[in-house]
Amino acid sequence: MLCEDKPAHECGVFAIVAPELDVARLTFFGLYALQHRGQESAGIAVANGRAIRYHKAMGLVSQVFNEENLRPLAGYVAIGHTRYSTTGSSKLENAQPFVVESALGPLAVGHNGNLTNAATLRRELLLRGVGLTGSSDSEVITQMLAGGEGRTWEEKLKVFMVRAQGAYCLTVLTRDAVFGVRDPLGLHPLCVGRLGERNWLLASESCAFGPIGAEFVRAVEPGEIVMLTEEGPQTLAHMPTARPAECLFEYIYFARPDSMLHGRTLHAMRVAQGRELARESPAEADLVIPVPDSATPAAIGYAQGSGLPYSEGLIKNRYIGRTFIQPDDQLRKVGISLKFNALGDNLVDKRVVLIDDSIVRGNTSGPIVRLLREAGAREVHVRVSSPPIRHPCFLGVDMATYPELIAYRLTIDEICKHLGADSLAYLSLEGLIRACRHEGDTFCKGCFSGRYPVDVELVDKEVFEIK
Amino acid sequence: MLCEDKPAHECGVFAIVAPELDVARLTFFGLYALQHRGQESAGIAVANGRAIRYHKAMGLVSQVFNEENLRPLAGYVAIGHTRYSTTGSSKLENAQPFVVESALGPLAVGHNGNLTNAATLRRELLLRGVGLTGSSDSEVITQMLAGGEGRTWEEKLKVFMVRAQGAYCLTVLTRDAVFGVRDPLGLHPLCVGRLGERNWLLASESCAFGPIGAEFVRAVEPGEIVMLTEEGPQTLAHMPTARPAECLFEYIYFARPDSMLHGRTLHAMRVAQGRELARESPAEADLVIPVPDSATPAAIGYAQGSGLPYSEGLIKNRYIGRTFIQPDDQLRKVGISLKFNALGDNLVDKRVVLIDDSIVRGNTSGPIVRLLREAGAREVHVRVSSPPIRHPCFLGVDMATYPELIAYRLTIDEICKHLGADSLAYLSLEGLIRACRHEGDTFCKGCFSGRYPVDVELVDKEVFEIK
Amino acid sequence: MLCEDKPAHECGVFAIVAPELDVARLTFFGLYALQHRGQESAGIAVANGRAIRYHKAMGLVSQVFNEENLRPLAGYVAIGHTRYSTTGSSKLENAQPFVVESALGPLAVGHNGNLTNAATLRRELLLRGVGLTGSSDSEVITQMLAGGEGRTWEEKLKVFMVRAQGAYCLTVLTRDAVFGVRDPLGLHPLCVGRLGERNWLLASESCAFGPIGAEFVRAVEPGEIVMLTEEGPQTLAHMPTARPAECLFEYIYFARPDSMLHGRTLHAMRVAQGRELARESPAEADLVIPVPDSATPAAIGYAQGSGLPYSEGLIKNRYIGRTFIQPDDQLRKVGISLKFNALGDNLVDKRVVLIDDSIVRGNTSGPIVRLLREAGAREVHVRVSSPPIRHPCFLGVDMATYPELIAYRLTIDEICKHLGADSLAYLSLEGLIRACRHEGDTFCKGCFSGRYPVDVELVDKEVFEIK
Amino acid sequence: MLCEDKPAHECGVFAIVAPELDVARLTFFGLYALQHRGQESAGIAVANGRAIRYHKAMGLVSQVFNEENLRPLAGYVAIGHTRYSTTGSSKLENAQPFVVESALGPLAVGHNGNLTNAATLRRELLLRGVGLTGSSDSEVITQMLAGGEGRTWEEKLKVFMVRAQGAYCLTVLTRDAVFGVRDPLGLHPLCVGRLGERNWLLASESCAFGPIGAEFVRAVEPGEIVMLTEEGPQTLAHMPTARPAECLFEYIYFARPDSMLHGRTLHAMRVAQGRELARESPAEADLVIPVPDSATPAAIGYAQGSGLPYSEGLIKNRYIGRTFIQPDDQLRKVGISLKFNALGDNLVDKRVVLIDDSIVRGNTSGPIVRLLREAGAREVHVRVSSPPIRHPCFLGVDMATYPELIAYRLTIDEICKHLGADSLAYLSLEGLIRACRHEGDTFCKGCFSGRYPVDVELVDKEVFEIK
Repeated sequence: MLCEDKPAHECGVFAIVAPELDVARLTFFGLYALQHRGQESAGIAVANGRAIRYHKAMGLVSQVFNEENLRPLAGYVAIGHTRYSTTGSSKLENAQPFVVESALGPLAVGHNGNLTNAATLRRELLLRGVGLTGSSDSEVITQMLAGGEGRTWEEKLKVFMVRAQGAYCLTVLTRDAVFGVRDPLGLHPLCVGRLGERNWLLASESCAFGPIGAEFVRAVEPGEIVMLTEEGPQTLAHMPTARPAECLFEYIYFARPDSMLHGRTLHAMRVAQGRELARESPAEADLVIPVPDSATPAAIGYAQGSGLPYSEGLIKNRYIGRTFIQPDDQLRKVGISLKFNALGDNLVDKRVVLIDDSIVRGNTSGPIVRLLREAGAREVHVRVSSPPIRHPCFLGVDMATYPELIAYRLTIDEICKHLGADSLAYLSLEGLIRACRHEGDTFCKGCFSGRYPVDVELVDKEVFEIK
Repeated sequence: MLCEDKPAHECGVFAIVAPELDVARLTFFGLYALQHRGQESAGIAVANGRAIRYHKAMGLVSQVFNEENLRPLAGYVAIGHTRYSTTGSSKLENAQPFVVESALGPLAVGHNGNLTNAATLRRELLLRGVGLTGSSDSEVITQMLAGGEGRTWEEKLKVFMVRAQGAYCLTVLTRDAVFGVRDPLGLHPLCVGRLGERNWLLASESCAFGPIGAEFVRAVEPGEIVMLTEEGPQTLAHMPTARPAECLFEYIYFARPDSMLHGRTLHAMRVAQGRELARESPAEADLVIPVPDSATPAAIGYAQGSGLPYSEGLIKNRYIGRTFIQPDDQLRKVGISLKFNALGDNLVDKRVVLIDDSIVRGNTSGPIVRLLREAGAREVHVRVSSPPIRHPCFLGVDMATYPELIAYRLTIDEICKHLGADSLAYLSLEGLIRACRHEGDTFCKGCFSGRYPVDVELVDKEVFEIK
Repeated sequence: MLCEDKPAHECGVFAIVAPELDVARLTFFGLYALQHRGQESAGIAVANGRAIRYHKAMGLVSQVFNEENLRPLAGYVAIGHTRYSTTGSSKLENAQPFVVESALGPLAVGHNGNLTNAATLRRELLLRGVGLTGSSDSEVITQMLAGGEGRTWEEKLKVFMVRAQGAYCLTVLTRDAVFGVRDPLGLHPLCVGRLGERNWLLASESCAFGPIGAEFVRAVEPGEIVMLTEEGPQTLAHMPTARPAECLFEYIYFARPDSMLHGRTLHAMRVAQGRELARESPAEADLVIPVPDSATPAAIGYAQGSGLPYSEGLIKNRYIGRTFIQPDDQLRKVGISLKFNALGDNLVDKRVVLIDDSIVRGNTSGPIVRLLREAGAREVHVRVSSPPIRHPCFLGVDMATYPELIAYRLTIDEICKHLGADSLAYLSLEGLIRACRHEGDTFCKGCFSGRYPVDVELVDKEVFEIK
Repeated sequence: MLCEDKPAHECGVFAIVAPELDVARLTFFGLYALQHRGQESAGIAVANGRAIRYHKAMGLVSQVFNEENLRPLAGYVAIGHTRYSTTGSSKLENAQPFVVESALGPLAVGHNGNLTNAATLRRELLLRGVGLTGSSDSEVITQMLAGGEGRTWEEKLKVFMVRAQGAYCLTVLTRDAVFGVRDPLGLHPLCVGRLGERNWLLASESCAFGPIGAEFVRAVEPGEIVMLTEEGPQTLAHMPTARPAECLFEYIYFARPDSMLHGRTLHAMRVAQGRELARESPAEADLVIPVPDSATPAAIGYAQGSGLPYSEGLIKNRYIGRTFIQPDDQLRKVGISLKFNALGDNLVDKRVVLIDDSIVRGNTSGPIVRLLREAGAREVHVRVSSPPIRHPCFLGVDMATYPELIAYRLTIDEICKHLGADSLAYLSLEGLIRACRHEGDTFCKGCFSGRYPVDVELVDKEVFEIK
């Protein structure tokens, strides 16, 4: 139970134009708020009208930056990036922003997402004579922009959007401008913020605005290219799209509960998910508890919907970090549970509804059920505030492969048995969408339904062993 | 708001006798669960009947240990320590366990607490001709044991208890035995656990037992010296005490909610504190929210007691770590709130009861109230599940000095105004004790009442500038 | 006197084909022997017929590599590089080998030298649509090979040689082959070695062969491309050249004294330089001492040529390393001499000939003369075993700029006065060439005569501030 | 051949009183010049009349200190230490100066040497009730001073000298004074320097004075206690001694050649050793070469004495450092010689006299002889400028044990055969003493004769495994 049974977070991107402020420092605090989207590496690039300077390194935002390496990053436009490894191995070469000198001048790119035709684009670059130093999509994107058709950055960005498929939220920095790009499917979020009168921002999530005193203005639309100027975001293009396909896992788990999408906080939508779940799958029980921390809003919603009292039944060790020490056989036998402890007082002789927001591989839920029983729970009814995940994500979320997905291998009854639960129910796809509903159904449901909004190239990762 | 307005945690101690298990590894996982009691340094010492080996360093438990430095720590008895700096500066010299060679053989000591007559004891050691390398109480204790009267460890421990005053939970390792000592006032917790048939443990809190498959057996009594043997804990002595004086802040904030004291989890007692608070100080409001995470149980209790719905109104950035980057003036002006974001959806036009477990300096509560208002809350009623802190702690908790304590400087009405709250109420001391009540009033209430259970020497820290 | 008054070393390159040996380990020890050619970063790339793996980092060879990062580098061909920063700033991005994926497969390049038309080549790459991540020539070379004309590596290398101007010794690794390239001017050395029957090597200097049990076979010729195979080096091409122009500073200072060029050790040639100097510029004196360590062979030669006794008069602190502590004013006033101490015994009342191999800026020779006088020397006659350096090097040696060169600013008499010497003489260019002579005058004398063997583009380094 | 066949260096001590100068910075540069005496750890302690502040860490002086950790070390008296591990393992706990708070105030001690009755003294401390944290003599000395008899530091130092046996050069810092102590045998050097009018210094060797503009004044006498004051060194005591017993290895190898003992540089004495050796053991040969660098003066002397030309035949890799990479079997088979390369040109068909200053285990001389032969030398005559080492040192020099000493196991003829040399001769003890002679024979000859100037307790190191 050292690792979570959750899909892996994506990356966080940030951008700012602020002629009279310390853009690097503001970007630092913006990334700080986006840290949940990626903990592997962080980077900031700043431009001053003439040149780009940057610093990036492996580690948390707070570890990567100090006053000494922040100081040289002076300018009036900046982008920042915090990375969770999806494709591309875990190496400094893959840290972002990716910065190059190009014929049009310096260029820095931060990317959240995954191109579905990356292998083709990569091959085209190699055939065009570009040597590629890493295995990340972001280098591919950067070299496509650096050397692709188009006489201006605007033209180049448009050409890129014609060629690229899949998920991409980009922040693009040149020597004197900053752009934001969101793919036509709108798979991942990107939004515009304002700080004072003349300072404008882009961020993966609106939670990056509050801590620096900025406010949410609007989402970048699917297929939109914006240029940030002191006058605000200028729309340079709007690529046509059949219909949006927003990643539902942003609504279930990825985005911070205090971020807003379509005018509501994720927290409110997750509470609504819990309420839907209570309506669809009630349980005869004494109390409702979450798997902390991510399922807490859904558990509050379930409690509201069911009228059962909300409580806590599991305590999470807040200091769980990457440890190099492995349990030995004896410890494995006793079923070591480093992450959670059960709260006997609240559980003894109780019928418990345990709320989780999602089950991917199903390897941590069983031990949690056992933990609750050992602490005295008489019954454990597992309720999941998302549908069964039966398909991998081919658009960039590190979900799992078919054989790893428990809901692909087993029926719900079998899963219930596997977990040792008294009952198990998932929220329906309709219920989920209802809880997240804004106007129209604009979601990607690939991992639930197997129907993806785009064709997918299956990349042979082995080719890139060389780096 | 980068730092918390809480008293500083103390240290965590751990000990084990387990002839056939990997005692160092078990100690590692025990310390992992006690990490909340101190994040500055960690150490493990192991004895094999002949010699003591140890490793200690600055940092979190998971940072300090790896397979390479754990491997040499072979033996059948061990102690571990995780340290929060109280007295003694933040230097490797002060990391624990403190290990020395003595006339009776090797000796390692881990200490949680603070001696109130440390300056006297220190002076006595110097006059006895012992040069002291650091400024920590723990070196004083170790040298007192190494060189004090007594022909056996048992005698030496008894002599020590006669001389020492104040707070001390000790785990003491010799070349072939391990002892636990709890001061006669029982200021801080220490308990006995069992793993299988013949393996016994000591830990500051019972939350250290679950993750390694052990179970809680009993508390070490105030004034008790126990020796851990394969047959279990043997009581070597029981120092007389007027009456115990357990630190109430263990009940309010320090101990993990899943740890048990006097047969109940701290979680249950904190829920009860919330209930008492609802009874004493109700509020006309629409919902109850905690300052996460520590006030969550009290908020749940307040909701239960008041009948108001429980919800969340503040999201905490889970990745807040030590950062080297300071906000600049512009950021300070916008009132940067790195730690919390408000959940507008839940707050707009609502009358909110905000539950906190304690207010020390009062420097973070004001900004939180403002954050809630800016997010739309119509009224904010602050309720604190502990009494006003009007006095410093002289027994080892790093609380604050008189001029820093807001409840020493201001009346409750003034504090309410200072925070910008619509109303403010603290739990009464009686209410608090009622919520924590086991048989008899066994608590230290120094920081609330100014009446301490022991005389205090005010140490002139300046003397030790040299180390 | 913390830094040396010497031109900066270049880089060291190494390559090996050895189907049954541990090529990475052999490359490590080869680089270890080439460490004097560059101490900033080190790297090794290995190929196994299918892919390339590599590791590189800032620091000395012995610091960069350990068993853990060497282990994955399995294969039968390898290249290694040790770097001294010339162009391109001191960043990991500029560490070598430079490794990319290309249309023909993976490619790794190690480079010693400096292209004189790098700015043009760089511009061409940018216009061709390649984004460049760093400012080093080596990335330019690698991208030229990755994307340049030619259907095979052999063709690509030939095309490169047609386009490139200036100094370059390359080792080039593909997924299954290793090549060596030396520029038509032969500015820097590159030679072939053999280990056993079927293992072949390339190295900047022959001193890399002895420590791994290999032997010197022959030089790579100016303008030659060789491919290393198990059957030995195959010459793929021989670019025509007007006439070679070997860097004389390899003969004076760069190459290790135990390396061989044209069949003689550098030590022997430097002894001969000292003998020529004694013949050209005798001195009435009692003994000959070197500026240790580099001038020792020339001093031995001068002693032999003059009949004066050889001795030591200066002791060098062997532990001089990069220190962060600067002398304060008081220490500067006393004329701190961290690097050398004088040997009073040998100097008192003596007339001393002080041999140095070169004077660049002239800022350390004066303090040395003063040191000798203060130690009792009656007369100090400075003799330099190379001609006055009156011109910068535009071919990659980090010599100095015109205004920094003391022999550009001052006459020899003025320099003598500046140093406080009793007399000063430099070896003539003819004498130097005579001492180094092999068949024909094959040397570059640019820094002595101002006549360079190639046209030079003066690069505006400011452009690249962005990285 | 990765490691040297030499006795291990001892430690270097330094002290200064300089009311108007930056004593920490001066101490840094003093230690920098004493680096050859120990590379394991370094430390500086400074006193300002009230308190002592210090910094120490593992590593070279230049690695341990930076402006940031030097800045707080303000005061007017200081001591410094650079350590080579002799007794006591290689741990930060053993780094010096050792600093404690004592009844008389703060105390810092730096120590060069080895107490022969350390085990007894250690036992006495333990019985007195002092817990010892490490296994070094220096902690023993410090605790003896901290807690020993005597009402003043002067009295305590005298009591210490009565009790201690063996080798010790101490620099002792209190809150306002600095003392130097040299053992009655005078085993290792300690001398007094002056900087300007009112600043006084102590150092292990006079080579520490030059770089900071100070000058040698006199040696501290065997058995002398001096207190440094602005008026100069005051002799507090002079312990009687039968006769001095200076370590001859200071004269052969330890001390830097530019240091002075009894009015002459070590360089001059080593040249004289070479001359004596030439007189005693001439060789029919063509040239004389040293094993660089330490045997260079002796080789110059041998050349002078024999009339044979001096030259170089071996080049030493200057970048040999601690490497983590081991040769594999194949490399071991080819007889890897990472440290030295032979200079073929100078050796081909020559009869060579190879001068070494000492042979301890005899494991590196054989490979060097082979290297010379493979490079073409016709004959190799080994001459050693010290007598055969037939006994270990029990006074603190890490020489070797009896079974390791080649001259204990083999006759000179057998050694010659073992080395593969054509002849072998050692300098006689008489010859050595004659070369080093000042008034009287004041030397310890234990390692040559087996007759030690003091009784030796053989310590059972096993006892201290615990630290």
